[in-house]
Amino acid sequence: MCAQYCISFADVEKAHINIRDFIHLTPVLTSSILNQVTGRNLYFKCELFQKTGSFKVTIPFNSVACIFSIPFHILNLLDSPDYSVRFDSGQGHMPRLQAHSVPRIPAYIVVPQTAPNCKKLAIQAYGASIVYSEQSDESRENITKRIIEETEGIMVHPNQEPAVMAGQGTIAMEVLNQVPLVDALVVPVGGGGMIAGIAITVKALRPTVKVYAAESLNADDCYKSKLKGELTPNPCPPETIADGVKSSIGLNTWPVIRDLVDDVFTVTEDEIKYATQLVWERMKLLIEPTAAVGVAAVLSQHFQTISPEVKNICIVLSGGNVDLTSITWMKQAERPAPYQSVSV
Amino acid sequence: MCAQYCISFADVEKAHINIRDFIHLTPVLTSSILNQVTGRNLYFKCELFQKTGSFKVTIPFNSVACIFSIPFHILNLLDSPDYSVRFDSGQGHMPRLQAHSVPRIPAYIVVPQTAPNCKKLAIQAYGASIVYSEQSDESRENITKRIIEETEGIMVHPNQEPAVMAGQGTIAMEVLNQVPLVDALVVPVGGGGMIAGIAITVKALRPTVKVYAAESLNADDCYKSKLKGELTPNPCPPETIADGVKSSIGLNTWPVIRDLVDDVFTVTEDEIKYATQLVWERMKLLIEPTAAVGVAAVLSQHFQTISPEVKNICIVLSGGNVDLTSITWMKQAERPAPYQSVSV
Repeated sequence: MCAQYCISFADVEKAHINIRDFIHLTPVLTSSILNQVTGRNLYFKCELFQKTGSFKVTIPFNSVACIFSIPFHILNLLDSPDYSVRFDSGQGHMPRLQAHSVPRIPAYIVVPQTAPNCKKLAIQAYGASIVYSEQSDESRENITKRIIEETEGIMVHPNQEPAVMAGQGTIAMEVLNQVPLVDALVVPVGGGGMIAGIAITVKALRPTVKVYAAESLNADDCYKSKLKGELTPNPCPPETIADGVKSSIGLNTWPVIRDLVDDVFTVTEDEIKYATQLVWERMKLLIEPTAAVGVAAVLSQHFQTISPEVKNICIVLSGGNVDLTSITWMKQAERPAPYQSVSV
Repeated sequence: MCAQYCISFADVEKAHINIRDFIHLTPVLTSSILNQVTGRNLYFKCELFQKTGSFKVTIPFNSVACIFSIPFHILNLLDSPDYSVRFDSGQGHMPRLQAHSVPRIPAYIVVPQTAPNCKKLAIQAYGASIVYSEQSDESRENITKRIIEETEGIMVHPNQEPAVMAGQGTIAMEVLNQVPLVDALVVPVGGGGMIAGIAITVKALRPTVKVYAAESLNADDCYKSKLKGELTPNPCPPETIADGVKSSIGLNTWPVIRDLVDDVFTVTEDEIKYATQLVWERMKLLIEPTAAVGVAAVLSQHFQTISPEVKNICIVLSGGNVDLTSITWMKQAERPAPYQSVSV
C-alpha cells in the first residue's frame, strides 16, 4: 500500500510523535437526540476545539516534514482554495522544543479580500500576517510567489502536501482509541487531505472500519471522480456555504480516496444549513457549515441505506470558524430530501 | 452548618447517588486565548452539554426528593421566573431504574406566550407539555394551580426547592474531581439554587476554595442583599439579555449565599454580550447569555483585583438555550468597562 500513495501509515505515526505534545486530544461528544433521529450511535470528534494559537510553530525549522505535520488546527483555516500559507525560515536555528513556551515562526497567509471576516480575524489573532490578493487564482499565486522569494519561505499546500495529510491522519488514531467500537468515520472532503490521512490510518489499523466522504452537491468532484474512476476536478469554483469543501481533490489525495474511501455522500445546501443549525441548537457546538457536511450526510435519506450493522459512527467536526454576524440564512433552513451517492 | 440551611452536604451526596446514572459527567474545557486574556487558568464546566431528553424522569414517583434531585439539566430551561413546572404523579408505581431506558413522567411547563421560542421548542422536544399563560405572575400562578389540581401533580420550584439545590450541588462535586487544583468557582446567580448547592458542597469539601457569584447589573438583588446583609429582591422584573438570572434569590437560597458565597460580581449588558460572543467565537461553545455572565465577571476590571493566587478558576457554563434567529445584538457588542462589586 505504501508504494501507491504519497504517505503511508508510518508517516502518520511519525507525525503523531512530532505533534502530540503541541496539540490537544480533542474530545468526542455524543447527542442522544441525534442518535434518536438517525437510529445510530453517533460520536462527534470535536476538531473544532483544536487549540488555536497554532501559528506559534513549535518544530525545528530545518525539519520541513515536521513543520508540515503540525497544523491540522491551522488547516481548519486553510483548507480552502482561497488560502495559501508560507512559513518564513526566519533565524534558521533550531529552537528547543517546549510545549506551551515556543518561538513563533513568521507566517504569511495570502487571502482574497472576499474571505470571510471571521477567518481574517482568526488568522491575525493567531499571530500570522495576512497578505491580500485579488479573487483570481493568478493574483493569489503571483503574490504567494513574490512573498516566498522575498522571505526565502516555504510554501505549504493545505491539502496536497503529504506531511499535512499525515498530520491529519492522527485524528483517526485518536478516534480509534476514543471510540474502540467505531464502525465508520464520516469526513468532509474538499481537497481531501484530511480524509486521505484518515483513510490511510483507518485501513492500516482497522481495515473493516468504513471511511465515508461527505461533500457538497455543489462541489461534488470527489463523487464524480469516484463515479468515473478518474480525477475529475470541479469545472469552476463552486458556490457553497461550506467554504472549506470548495477545493477539488488533487493528484496526491485522489489515489487514496479512489482506493480507500468506501462511499461518498453528497448533500444539498439546505441539508448543510439544516445540519449546522441542528448541531448548534441541540449540541451547543458552534460548528462551521463545512463541519456540518458530515452531519448532513448521516442525516440524509441515502445514509439510511447503509446497513444497520454500521452502528457506531464517528463524524469529524472539522472546524468552527463561523461568521456569526452574517448568519442570515438560518430562518430559511428547512430539512430537505434529495441526495446523490456512489458506492464502490 | 447543616442546621442553618435548608440543605446540607449530605443532601448533595444523596442527590449524587440518585442522579449519577441518569446524567452525563459534563466535560471541563479550557481555552488558551481566554487564559491569555485573563492571566488565569480558566476551566469551563460545560453544563450546557448536559443531556437533554431530561423530562424522561427516571426516579420512583413516590420519592419526591428524588424527583427534585434529578434535573439540573431540566433547570437550565426552568431557572427563570417565567417557568413553573409540575410533574404528574401518573401511574404511581415504581418503575425499574434503568438509565437510557426509562419511563416518562408527564410534565407540564407553564410558560408565558412571550418566552423565547428556542425554550418552547426545547420543552416540546423533551416530551413535556407546554401550557401557556399570560405574562403576569397572577396568570401563571392561577394556571399552575389549576393544572396541579386537575392532575394531582407536584409543583417543582426551579430554585428554592431544597432537592433542586442539592442536585445542582453535584456540579461542584464533579468540578472538585475534574479540576483538583481549582482555587475558585464562578457561578451565575438568578434564584440562587445552583450557587447555593455549589457553595454548600465546596465549603464542605474544600473550604479554602472560593465561590463567586456573577450577576447582571440589571438584576443585582444578590449584590444588594449581600451589601445590606438582608434579602433584597429585585423591586420589579428586571430587563436583561441573560434571562436565566432574572429571578431574585429567595428565602432558601439567601442564607447560603449570605454565609458561603465569597463575593458577587455584577456585569453590564454589554459585558454579557461581549463575553457571549467571545465564547462563541473563541471556544465554539454556543452558550446562552446567562452562562456568559460568569465569563463576563472573570473578564471584568474588578476581577483583576482578586489575588493572582486565585489562579485556577472554574466557570460554570450553565446553559445553551440561545434563540439563534434573533441574535441581532451581536454587532453592537463592545468590550465595556464599568463594574460593581461587594466583598465579604
